[in-house]
Amino acid sequence: MFKSILLLILISVLSSCNNKKIDFAIVVHGGAGTITKASMSNEMELAYNQKLEEAINTGYKILEKGGTSLDAVESTIKILENSELFNAGKGSVLSNEEIVEMDASIMNGNNLNAGAISGVRTIKNPISAARLVMEKSDHVFLSGIGAESFAKSKGLEIVNNEYFITQRRLNSLLNAKKRDTLNDNKFGTVGCVALDKLGNIASGTSTGGMTNKKWNRIGDVPIIGAGTYANNNTCGISSTGWGEFFIRNVVAYDISSQIEYKNLSIDIAAKNTLNKVKNLGGSGGIVGIDKYGNIVMDFNTDGMYRALKKSDGSFDIKIYR
Amino acid sequence: MFKSILLLILISVLSSCNNKKIDFAIVVHGGAGTITKASMSNEMELAYNQKLEEAINTGYKILEKGGTSLDAVESTIKILENSELFNAGKGSVLSNEEIVEMDASIMNGNNLNAGAISGVRTIKNPISAARLVMEKSDHVFLSGIGAESFAKSKGLEIVNNEYFITQRRLNSLLNAKKRDTLNDNKFGTVGCVALDKLGNIASGTSTGGMTNKKWNRIGDVPIIGAGTYANNNTCGISSTGWGEFFIRNVVAYDISSQIEYKNLSIDIAAKNTLNKVKNLGGSGGIVGIDKYGNIVMDFNTDGMYRALKKSDGSFDIKIYR
Repeated sequence: MFKSILLLILISVLSSCNNKKIDFAIVVHGGAGTITKASMSNEMELAYNQKLEEAINTGYKILEKGGTSLDAVESTIKILENSELFNAGKGSVLSNEEIVEMDASIMNGNNLNAGAISGVRTIKNPISAARLVMEKSDHVFLSGIGAESFAKSKGLEIVNNEYFITQRRLNSLLNAKKRDTLNDNKFGTVGCVALDKLGNIASGTSTGGMTNKKWNRIGDVPIIGAGTYANNNTCGISSTGWGEFFIRNVVAYDISSQIEYKNLSIDIAAKNTLNKVKNLGGSGGIVGIDKYGNIVMDFNTDGMYRALKKSDGSFDIKIYR
Repeated sequence: MFKSILLLILISVLSSCNNKKIDFAIVVHGGAGTITKASMSNEMELAYNQKLEEAINTGYKILEKGGTSLDAVESTIKILENSELFNAGKGSVLSNEEIVEMDASIMNGNNLNAGAISGVRTIKNPISAARLVMEKSDHVFLSGIGAESFAKSKGLEIVNNEYFITQRRLNSLLNAKKRDTLNDNKFGTVGCVALDKLGNIASGTSTGGMTNKKWNRIGDVPIIGAGTYANNNTCGISSTGWGEFFIRNVVAYDISSQIEYKNLSIDIAAKNTLNKVKNLGGSGGIVGIDKYGNIVMDFNTDGMYRALKKSDGSFDIKIYR
């Protein structure tokens, strides 16, 4: 009897250590896909690492000063949108019509507010438009020209579609058209999840979608529950991958609901969900933070651009498996 | 010991009775909202009841002959889309620009395939376009003009936007504009869930969205996981209500995940989820069927147009609480 009580105390101490509350934390991804050391020049690798570091430090500093997780997520994603390296904002992939059409979403885990936009062609920073939809409209999800009018009416920076187009993505499109393929297995979607000092979790995701996409296709990124989800009681998640499979598996919310309903850890929940994606024939990855500050960065592709930073001193930037 | 075994046997017999497999079943809704006996003429009540009966019998006959749940769902929803009574297809509500813009989605619980369209103005039967996206494209979600081009290329019937517009909805828009309001608390979205003889569940939902909507707003209806979800291992769900709240609560998948992860019954799961919607300030309802053929028709509004029919002889059509 006495031994059992001692064991119980030991278990509870150990589990509380495991769930030691982190003050604040941030995690970011720049897309998952067939990213291998063999296919990457040293210069490109350095460029990706530097941009990921700049992005995560931008968000981290906001959290460190007591800023909100929403501000950290938006500012971090803007850095990646403004960089040509990633498939979001400037440097987005091109549709079949040689146009950049972008999707983005953001969610506030404190009150489950959310905002999303799809198919926008002229908004310099789609993540900021998603946040405006969340905070300054009665809606969650606006699309196309309507979303652009809304963003313009709120004073967001509007640019020509040419601003987003790069030679690298034009070449990818020409290659995809030659092979008549949709999916080049390099998903460059960007995303970020942050936990601030007040315990509020926010998630955001931004993308140019799929090279050679047709018919105003919408992927998982602007779908709350698939591409993005945040809930202070469970976790925040941002997805990157083959969007159709992420929608069908309701990826971001499936991870959260395993934490809520099965009391699973965020890394086990994420593994289960990514296995579901794989079993249907899809691939990709996610980043997430749970309410204790535990971070997950998981994927079933060769690589995923990713970085994490926590108030306990943890810091990591990685590309390959 | 012997008594315990007897008790266990008794419990397992009783619980298997409770989950007695229904051969096939179908449930339909025509929207939830402030629908009260006091506000309804006898003629309108009769018209709604007759159309709900025609719709559910159409799907039921398909199931009875051994047809698929997908065929039953599509055919049932087409009847409601072609009727002026409901806010889907002909008779859809009007946007701020006096245009009908429709959303729809469908999901196959057997393989988790799904299709959705949003913001279409010229496709006579949006539910059929959603099914074509699922079965004849590499995508899950197409929007706007792209979705229309796709549907046209597959031979779907295309009509002018005027076809959808009715005097009743024009009056509603003028009223909404006068009061500068978005939500008239009468959500007329239509939806259907069916379980066929092979045990396959399918769900579909179709809507004209919200009266006076702006900026190409997208609601929950085309969002897999929010407006529609189907999984043979759990249930099929179709939602109707204030879309923004249904997106934020990932309503359809939240019900499924409580069945999957907490082993809850479909009616308890639905009640929990609709309470989450209510707690955020939203309202609406859902219909669903679980893998045993148990049907749920739940809502937190004054009324919901709804009907069910099962192979065991159950048959019900209702409007009010």
